[in-house]
Amino acid sequence: MLIVQKYGGTSVANPDRIKKVARHVADTFRNGHKVVVVVSAMAGETDRLLKLGHETGEAAAERELDALLATGEQASAALVAIAINNAGVPAVSLNAMQIPIVTDSCHQRARMKYIITDKINKLLSSGHIVIITGFQGVDDSGDFTTIGRGGSDTSAVAIAKVLNADWCEIYSDVEGLYSADPNACPKAVKIERASYEELLETAGAGAKVVHMHAVELAARHNVFLHLKKSPSLGADAAGTKITQDINMEDVMVSTVAQTLNEAKLSVEKVPNKVGIAARIFEPLARANINVDMIVQNVAKDGTSAISFTIAKQDLKKAMQLTEAAAREMGAGKVEVSGDVAKISIIGVGMRSHAGVAARMFETLARHGIDIQMISTSEIKVSVVIDSKHASKAVSVLHEAFISSA
Amino acid sequence: MLIVQKYGGTSVANPDRIKKVARHVADTFRNGHKVVVVVSAMAGETDRLLKLGHETGEAAAERELDALLATGEQASAALVAIAINNAGVPAVSLNAMQIPIVTDSCHQRARMKYIITDKINKLLSSGHIVIITGFQGVDDSGDFTTIGRGGSDTSAVAIAKVLNADWCEIYSDVEGLYSADPNACPKAVKIERASYEELLETAGAGAKVVHMHAVELAARHNVFLHLKKSPSLGADAAGTKITQDINMEDVMVSTVAQTLNEAKLSVEKVPNKVGIAARIFEPLARANINVDMIVQNVAKDGTSAISFTIAKQDLKKAMQLTEAAAREMGAGKVEVSGDVAKISIIGVGMRSHAGVAARMFETLARHGIDIQMISTSEIKVSVVIDSKHASKAVSVLHEAFISSA
Repeated sequence: MLIVQKYGGTSVANPDRIKKVARHVADTFRNGHKVVVVVSAMAGETDRLLKLGHETGEAAAERELDALLATGEQASAALVAIAINNAGVPAVSLNAMQIPIVTDSCHQRARMKYIITDKINKLLSSGHIVIITGFQGVDDSGDFTTIGRGGSDTSAVAIAKVLNADWCEIYSDVEGLYSADPNACPKAVKIERASYEELLETAGAGAKVVHMHAVELAARHNVFLHLKKSPSLGADAAGTKITQDINMEDVMVSTVAQTLNEAKLSVEKVPNKVGIAARIFEPLARANINVDMIVQNVAKDGTSAISFTIAKQDLKKAMQLTEAAAREMGAGKVEVSGDVAKISIIGVGMRSHAGVAARMFETLARHGIDIQMISTSEIKVSVVIDSKHASKAVSVLHEAFISSA
Repeated sequence: MLIVQKYGGTSVANPDRIKKVARHVADTFRNGHKVVVVVSAMAGETDRLLKLGHETGEAAAERELDALLATGEQASAALVAIAINNAGVPAVSLNAMQIPIVTDSCHQRARMKYIITDKINKLLSSGHIVIITGFQGVDDSGDFTTIGRGGSDTSAVAIAKVLNADWCEIYSDVEGLYSADPNACPKAVKIERASYEELLETAGAGAKVVHMHAVELAARHNVFLHLKKSPSLGADAAGTKITQDINMEDVMVSTVAQTLNEAKLSVEKVPNKVGIAARIFEPLARANINVDMIVQNVAKDGTSAISFTIAKQDLKKAMQLTEAAAREMGAGKVEVSGDVAKISIIGVGMRSHAGVAARMFETLARHGIDIQMISTSEIKVSVVIDSKHASKAVSVLHEAFISSA
């Protein structure tokens, strides 16, 4: 098999961990596989470089920031190659310029255009392990670019795709995808297989196992993902496999997820005009405030109530902007819940099972948990509740849908 | 004018110093010059990376060590570009791969083959300052190489040569070339102009202003050097200019230099055979022990006495190797002076002034300083003395040749 293995910054945080990663990579190779490794910068390195950049110039040129950041992955790739060579298998590091991985010229948030595979394939054929810098690319002018934070996952999936790899293994500090946050729910179990969509919905709701752009890319090109705990952090053999071919009958709900530290704002009596939502959310976007859930209800008098959630730390700024917008459009007052949590149940099986949402609401009601907002997708139901009930909600939903299933 | 400015690691050790360097570069540009900047890695960075490399794999692959080390200059070049942009002048960083600076494939000690100047010239023509990574190159296979420690000076001279620059300014923590070490000799004065040869002889004798390979390259291609104190370390306007056209009548002796922490070994009664010196010095070279001065005298009985100096820290190992060699060739015993210093007087003027060496020996003798070894070149006379007399020797020679001249 041809396997792409991606190791994040925590997995290669120091020489000791790099050596453990190297032994695992060499073992995979010795088991008869071709191996391509994609690495992030060592934990903390990207932040160190960014800090240096900002201390050196307040308005740092993005082209130069990318050249600066690209050194982080180049260093870790070389170190991993050194360690694998020392583990007895020939290994060669390549940066984005050497391959090349060609992107557009949008520095700091470039998009990959194509990857030339000749050099990689030649090295694989001659018995080498190839170590590739994640996160970075090079544009048509030969300048370094970066594809945004967390982008090494996306690099790994893109490389797995162009090489036609059998698996793209994503190693992190988490053992895979769980049916709920094990900290919030002791009965949480690890999920052995899930679909791209389930993973997408889960991750959006808080489980930070793999970057979402990478999962979208994997889904589009049917790249099989295998989420595993890094061998440098105490290996777990099984992990979670993400593929398209999930038996939909299998499970109705596979995961209960929670997002804490949210705040909710509600604007009452919003006049029902075209473009009115934009007048609330555009100022927030300009202020870089991320809006999570949005719910709009049209009342009998023709006005709407619009509620939305944001990260708690953005509350003060969001409040000012939203009150200004409400005044301007002649809406009613803005109400705030400063401490809410979003709880979601996720599962491909929902599509074929009616009444999942109803059962969720009933379960919460039975345990005295008040629901403030509801939002649903094809394979997910999310509710916003008072954050003091969050861990109880996760437990009772897990009991209702997973443990007892 | 087209000016190449080279800044060493101490000059760009932190954001504050980088900003000062940037202001100086921008000022040079605003004075109507085209400017190319060559940078070393930030002070300590190369050692940090080497340490990581060696901790990750004892026998680190040299190809990967070079890829690792190349990140040091890439980061500092990007930071300098950020700072210059913030100082209001457009600046772009380029690494060796982007230019490219092409070398052979001898990793860790590569030799430059050629430099493509198109990209640099295009950027200069469009009003940019170009920041180039020193120390690194790329070989025909597209792999990073490094040209050996201190190599950024050599990079700067090579770039000045191919661009036909008017001056190659080497900024360091020293104000230029002095007539003696100011610490050893309070009467030392800064030299305004010197020739390549004088600089070569001086630096070999201990003054660490600029790397010797760089000076040799500058001499070969007649690249004018200007040694200056870095603006980030308290600027000195004048510095020392190094060119070919020195008036030989000017000064007889321009510099008194000292090298401390040496040890001397002498082998007696070495049989007078072809290749005998090699049998002493080859084992030392293999053990990476640098031999400084070598003096050989043929005695009346046809045997030779061979004396040489080495760095004091290599004494124990050198002693073992030399005693083994002496036994093997049937030579006499090996004698050691564990604490000697080399004192040199240097000056192009010596060529046209007879009796300089004699006056040096007489001066030392008059002050009761015993000479253990003598070695001369066209423009230098070096003596080895007991290190306890070193600073006195520098003073009395400075008085005799320079202060009183």
